[in-house]
Amino acid sequence: MTRDQDWVRSKLGYSFKDENLLASALTHRSAGSRHNERLEFLGDALINFVIALELYRRVPRADEGDLSRLRASLVKGGSLAELARSVSLGDQLKLGSGELKSGGYRRESILADALEAMFGAILLDGGTEAASKAILVLFDERLHNLPKPEHLKDSKTRLQEWLQARNIALPVYAVDEVQGAAHNQRFSVSCQVASLDQVTTGGGTSRRKAEQASAEKMLEILTKESLI
Amino acid sequence: MTRDQDWVRSKLGYSFKDENLLASALTHRSAGSRHNERLEFLGDALINFVIALELYRRVPRADEGDLSRLRASLVKGGSLAELARSVSLGDQLKLGSGELKSGGYRRESILADALEAMFGAILLDGGTEAASKAILVLFDERLHNLPKPEHLKDSKTRLQEWLQARNIALPVYAVDEVQGAAHNQRFSVSCQVASLDQVTTGGGTSRRKAEQASAEKMLEILTKESLI
Repeated sequence: MTRDQDWVRSKLGYSFKDENLLASALTHRSAGSRHNERLEFLGDALINFVIALELYRRVPRADEGDLSRLRASLVKGGSLAELARSVSLGDQLKLGSGELKSGGYRRESILADALEAMFGAILLDGGTEAASKAILVLFDERLHNLPKPEHLKDSKTRLQEWLQARNIALPVYAVDEVQGAAHNQRFSVSCQVASLDQVTTGGGTSRRKAEQASAEKMLEILTKESLI
Repeated sequence: MTRDQDWVRSKLGYSFKDENLLASALTHRSAGSRHNERLEFLGDALINFVIALELYRRVPRADEGDLSRLRASLVKGGSLAELARSVSLGDQLKLGSGELKSGGYRRESILADALEAMFGAILLDGGTEAASKAILVLFDERLHNLPKPEHLKDSKTRLQEWLQARNIALPVYAVDEVQGAAHNQRFSVSCQVASLDQVTTGGGTSRRKAEQASAEKMLEILTKESLI
């Protein structure tokens, strides 16, 4: 048994029949023509499906929006990269010398992509069921510790829902200031909840980001002080 | 056998064990609390996965970008709505009176969503394999008549690749004119390929769209006239 075989069996609980598939999954495009990009496409689709089905079953009261946000939090690049690190996937990866020199093996996206490719390879090697099982084992802890769906909503949405639940008039956002040149602007936005006599301000590189920052501050004030 | 059962068996080749699942899949949120939104989330993920796997097998030379574009063309809302119409899904849909009055049953997104929900329901009722089979039967003609991946690329990308393949310097885009108020602007952009002495102009509601239009015109000229 090769070192790669050993690794995948101990870390992902799967034994490859076709070692070439395993080798492709572990090869970044910088390291050879039989690289993992097509497998990554496949694995990404599979992970999205398996996690969707699992969330559908586990969170029967979540609506479509909540399910989408929960899934996004589980399968986003940063989360996949963390899972890849938890099984030391970086140590198995074949990278071209350029990527190696630039410390590319640590780069989030390379790790996330390779993890997707690994599940794509298991799918082709052992079928949908074997690959689903391997995915659910790796995601097990996260599936047991799902964030509350409302925490995944953006601040403006949460503020709006908080106010609506209390029959309070919605906030008014206003751009107070824009600084900098066209492609390097800095926005300052105020968020006012007039009936509670509260104003916060937030900053960001876009109007949207500044609005979110101001809404987040307003939420902090309102939920901390229990003004109502 | 109910009318819905009849329909799904004759049009999608599947017989439901659980009629409640079928009923939910056919119920828009305007028509009741047991509606199809959660099933739509599930079906969307399944269709994306099944089509990804099928494209992976059918188009072995396509790279990841081509596979993504091919899939997007197959599963975009308009394509799903067309497939929904081809099986007269609209006739089976349960819609609230508001949606009915507004002619909502014809609306693309309602049809596309309901088709996704239908496959989500088949998945829960009969498992991944049965649902995959039903999806592949419905998509069969489209899978046999896939567009050429290069035709799915945007005009600027195609123009760039056409020029690079001929070692010609890349085009220069310039905004010639912007008309209208801030939220209702009209852009006019020129695309210049200096070494071929060609200039085209394109218009659109954003700079990006205007650039694409100008690139499309340039492509038409270059590929038609065979200037090289």
